Order: sequence, then structure tokens, then C-alpha cells
Amino acid sequence: MPEKVVILGSTGSIGRSTLEVVSQHPDEFEVVALAAGSNVEEMIKQAKTFNPKMISMATKEAAEEVRQALNGQVRVLYGEEALIEVATHPDATMVVSALVGSRGLPPTLAAIQADKKIGLANKETLVTAGHIVTQAAEKAGVPILPIDSEHSAIFQCLNGERREDVRRLILTASGGAFRDWSREELVHATPEKALKHPNWSMGAKVTVDSATLMNKGLEVIEAHWLFGFSYDHIDVLIHPQSIVHSMVEFHDGAVMAQLGTPDMKVPIQYALTYPKRLPLLTKPLDLVQISRLDFRKPDLKRYPCLQMAYDAGRVGGTMTAVLNAANEVAVEQFLAGHISFLAIEQVIEQALSKHEPLANPTLEEIEEADRWARDFANRWVSMSA
Amino acid sequence: MPEKVVILGSTGSIGRSTLEVVSQHPDEFEVVALAAGSNVEEMIKQAKTFNPKMISMATKEAAEEVRQALNGQVRVLYGEEALIEVATHPDATMVVSALVGSRGLPPTLAAIQADKKIGLANKETLVTAGHIVTQAAEKAGVPILPIDSEHSAIFQCLNGERREDVRRLILTASGGAFRDWSREELVHATPEKALKHPNWSMGAKVTVDSATLMNKGLEVIEAHWLFGFSYDHIDVLIHPQSIVHSMVEFHDGAVMAQLGTPDMKVPIQYALTYPKRLPLLTKPLDLVQISRLDFRKPDLKRYPCLQMAYDAGRVGGTMTAVLNAANEVAVEQFLAGHISFLAIEQVIEQALSKHEPLANPTLEEIEEADRWARDFANRWVSMSA
Repeated sequence: MPEKVVILGSTGSIGRSTLEVVSQHPDEFEVVALAAGSNVEEMIKQAKTFNPKMISMATKEAAEEVRQALNGQVRVLYGEEALIEVATHPDATMVVSALVGSRGLPPTLAAIQADKKIGLANKETLVTAGHIVTQAAEKAGVPILPIDSEHSAIFQCLNGERREDVRRLILTASGGAFRDWSREELVHATPEKALKHPNWSMGAKVTVDSATLMNKGLEVIEAHWLFGFSYDHIDVLIHPQSIVHSMVEFHDGAVMAQLGTPDMKVPIQYALTYPKRLPLLTKPLDLVQISRLDFRKPDLKRYPCLQMAYDAGRVGGTMTAVLNAANEVAVEQFLAGHISFLAIEQVIEQALSKHEPLANPTLEEIEEADRWARDFANRWVSMSA
Repeated sequence: MPEKVVILGSTGSIGRSTLEVVSQHPDEFEVVALAAGSNVEEMIKQAKTFNPKMISMATKEAAEEVRQALNGQVRVLYGEEALIEVATHPDATMVVSALVGSRGLPPTLAAIQADKKIGLANKETLVTAGHIVTQAAEKAGVPILPIDSEHSAIFQCLNGERREDVRRLILTASGGAFRDWSREELVHATPEKALKHPNWSMGAKVTVDSATLMNKGLEVIEAHWLFGFSYDHIDVLIHPQSIVHSMVEFHDGAVMAQLGTPDMKVPIQYALTYPKRLPLLTKPLDLVQISRLDFRKPDLKRYPCLQMAYDAGRVGGTMTAVLNAANEVAVEQFLAGHISFLAIEQVIEQALSKHEPLANPTLEEIEEADRWARDFANRWVSMSA
């Protein structure tokens, strides 16, 4: 029986890689439904190749264009409710959650409640609502399979192991575009330079997050929810080559690591095929050619975003939603040229210090905290401009 | 219920480390019986600490000394049959096979046939009689748990994985004491220099084997039998720091690796506690302090012993017993100052080229091949002296 897959965010980087994996194994996977934002052209191409039963786009106009190009033969919906309908399609057995931003949360939660296995690439789902999502998954008895090289690596390292035998999780970080810059040099960091990531080709937001290490901070929070370890048992190590994707240290001193060439198809396919593996066309790891792997401690003074993520994670409640929202605004403003690179951390710091966190928030309270943080961050930027 | 352990070779390096592990977990393990060669003093100390029910020594004299020191309160035997009796003690649930040399084979096989789990450190068992031992273990339904940092690493990397998903096993090798020497420099390699192993503290024989890479060659043959992969799917990588103990590459491109500070207690304890892990007092791995890990291809021209091991493994039958026996004699003669370092490989090469291998040999035929190879090697050495 093929895995019947829904992809939320099919025209994005993770979505397209997921469809590449599907193409490599036509007997193993069937595409049930696809959801995207406004990339009409790509969706039409995907629909013609993968024949989904249902499509959802962000707007009425986009949906209309797609519908016409497909001669009305596929149901094409739009809007937030359409996302939920796609995510809970009765034929689906697995939902790949790869929308960017907080709009990925409601359909992911709906998919969990509809008993679908989740392949999770959307960061906000766990960062802002980890307690709700993990509880829902436990209640429904569905696994949340990480699609992210670091969390997939940890998940693979935990394979066949007992939770109580783990001493700590070790997330590796490339250090991003500015990993060899001093604080003084970072004053002159521009969006163009920030977007030159040394190892991974990703979207602009994630690439900037990787230069501030906020990306790693958000991953620490995700790891906390995905694997259920306290923040004291989650460490970060700078590893410039991005070959060791992450590690787990056990109480007997053994450290298990997952390595590979940086290629998102590997963790995507692992989430789709777990606990099996399937052959995958990807560049094999050549350690002889790479020749050396380096490791160093992250400097929390130079990377205050990582420290703020730990702090926000430890406070919990709505604090992580504020961290995430303030960071999103700050990165947008940096990419638009309105604030400097080092102002990103200031925006977030200010938002976190002004926020009164709520413990155990509802989805509405999380949304409210998210809105508050965005407003606050935007106001801070306009005032300091 | 504690694991009831017999240790064959309790006064050697692996045996003593095994008892250290046992000491750290008095509730988990009980020592049923100990066997050693002639180290009377150490055996008396061990017997007083661990209260075994039975002891075996190599000679009548050694046994007598131990018996008297223990006031006759423990059964102390000697000789080859005593080894079998110890290895098959009715109370034992697990036998750690850590005798050095081919005399480790008969008691290990006897323990398997008596349904004991095996913690295997004795190389000869699989190198010379892999087909007999693995068949016996399969028939008895007992696991052979590797006690060797490389094989334990591979065993841990295979945890929770399917055999058919494996692309290849990658054994790491430190490269030994001469890893940066050229062939020209190796002409002047002395026993003193050979015994300075950069990372592990081991016996003289193993340390020389590690300088010739014969150690790795024997491990390749062991890995073939332990994990059931053909020689084309077992590779060796030079990794000078000995931190990555070995790796497994899967068909999806993922590579799992096991890392740790070099400490034999880790693989020993893993064999004793598998599939669980227990806390262990050992120096935690500090990748920040180590800072870099290097990898390079082994040069089979500079390390012909590794190539000979692959070749002998592929021929199979009695060929690997000849490889092992000729190597033992050659290393002895080198350590005694009778032949040069580079003559070690010549002795082995000559023995392999003169041997007429038997396929699927019996234990007697293996012993006969072993004797023939030792005679041949000794004659070759005296003729060339």
C-alpha cells in the first residue's frame, strides 16, 4: 500500500524536494492533495505531474487560475478553511507540513486530529504551540516525524534506543554566513552578505536566521518538544561543514551521529519511509574528499539570539511565540534594508523583555501574543528609524 | 535478574576492563567463573573481589597456586578442558570471550552450543572459523555481541535498522604508530617505535598489527562474519583521532556513526547490557576540545597487510587461518628483533601464496592450516635470517 501524501507548501523548497522524493518512488507514494500560496505556475506543473485530488491556494485569484489551467478537472480551493480541508483529506495517511510561518499551525493540528502521520518542516508549529501539538499527537497516537536535517539526525540517532539512556542531544550549526565575523564586523553585515549561506541553499528568512543562530535557537525549542528533553539536555555545537547533522550522547559515553551531504531529500524521505529506508538518488558522503570535520563552541555573546531562544524556551508559555514573531519582523525589516543586522537581536530582546508571558496558552492566546509581538517589533523599528 | 558472566581471559586488558564494568554495576552483573593463563597474582586478586564459583588457569602449577591462596574454597581447574567447563558453566548466561589467540575458539564455540550469549573480543574465533561459529550461533539462537570498538560501533549504528537498507560498513583505523611514515622510512621501524600507539593502550601484538593495518584487515574479516556483508560492502577509512569508532552508510545516503573517547569499557558494557545502556564512568567526548576529525583513504600499497586480509577473506576457507597464523609468527619474530618491520608482510605474503586453501574446513582442518602456516612462517624466518 503506497503512503498517501498531502503536501502543505508544495511549491516551496521543502515541498518541491518532497515531490522529488515521491518521483523517485512512484510505487511507494501517492499524492492526494497539494497546498501552496500564490505560485500558480509551479502548482499547475505539479498538478499535471502528480494528479492530486484536491488543491488549495492562498487566494481566490490563484485558485481560479489553477482551476482553469487544469480544465476544471481537479477541485481547487482557497483560503484558510481550504488548508484544513486539504490537511484532513480522508484518503491521506500522511501530511507533510511545509508551509512557512504561523499559518502552518492550524492545518497541522487539524491533520493530527484527523489521525494523519505528520512530516513536520514548519517550525512555528512546535515553537509556538509545542504543548498543544504534542499533546494532540499523543492523544491521536500519531507520530510527528521531523523533516529538518538536525531533528531527523537526532531521530535517527535515537532509533532503537531507550529515552532514559540519553544524556543530551547535540544540535550542530554551520554558524551561517558570518561565522568568522567579529561583533565589530557584524555592524557592517548586509542582507546580500547574509544570504550567502556556506552549505545549504534555503529561503532568505532561514538564511538570515542561520547567520544570527536564531535558526538553531528555534531548533532547540523544537527539539525540546519533539523529543521531550529539558533545555539543560540540549546543546549546540558549531560545525562549519554541515556534514554531521546532529548527535545524541548516551549515559554510557557513546555518541551516535548522523552524517551526510547536505540534501533535504534525505530527511524528507526518512520521514516518509520511517522506520524503513529506501534508496535515494543523492550525492554520497565522501569523507575522504571532505577530509576534515571541525567543531567549536558557539559564542553566546556573539550569538545572543541563541541565548534568547534558550531563555524564552525555559520560560515557555507565550514567550516562544513572541520570540518567533519578533524575529520574523526583525528579519523582514533587515532584508528590506530598514534595520542593521545587529538590530535584529535588539528588536527581539526588547519584545521579550516587554512581554508578560502566559503559561499553558490556548491557540487564541498564542495568536494574540504573536500579534502583540509583531506590532511591538514594527513600532520599535519605526521609532528607532 | 543480574547477568551471570563468565570471563575467558580475565587478567588481560579486556578482561580487567570487563571487571571494571562489573564493579560499576554490582546489581546488574554477577561473576560466575574466570579463566586466565598464568597471571596468578592478578587472578587471586580478582577472585577475592568477585567471588567466582570456578576458576581456570593454563597450567597445573598456576592452578595450584591460586587454589592455595584462596584456601581451597573455590574450584580451580587447568588446561583446555577446564576452559570448556568454565565456558559452559550451567549458571552462566553470558560468556565474555577475551582470550588471546586461537585457543579462544574451542571454549567460545562450546559456550555457544551451551546457549550462552557471547561477548566476543577474541579475534581468531571469527577470523579462522567464522562459518562454523556463526552457524552454531544461529542454530543455538544466541547473539554474538562484539567487544571491539569498531564492531560495537557498527552494531550500534545498525540498531533499529533493516539489513537490506545498508549500503556499506565503514571501519575506521587510526593508522597506528607509523601512519605518517613513508615506505622508505618503514625500513627503519623498530619494535620500540611500533609500540607507541597514538590513541589506544593495547597489548604488543595488537599494537604492531595496528601499525601494519593487519588489525584492520582482521576486523574486516570479523565484520564480514558478524554482520553478514560481502567484502565489497566493507570499507576502511583512516581516521587518526580514533574518535569515530566506525560507521554505516545506508541506501538513502545517510551515514550513522558512533563516536566516543577511546575507552574499551564502552563497547564492553554495551555488549553486556544490549539493548539497554547503563551509565558508565568514562571521560565524556569533548568535540570542542578535540576540535577536528580527519579522514583519509588507506594507501593499500603502503599497507599491503590490509589488501592481503581482503584477498584472504574473499578466498575464504582455511586462507584466513593462514593469514592470521603467519601474521602472529611474523609479529612475534619482529618483536623479538629477528626480522624487520617490512618483513612481516613478506612472511604473510609467502605463506598465503604457498597455501592450498580448503573450502568450508572443519575445526581440525583449520587447526592443521594454522599449524602449517606457523611452521612455514618460522622456517621462512630462519632461512632468511
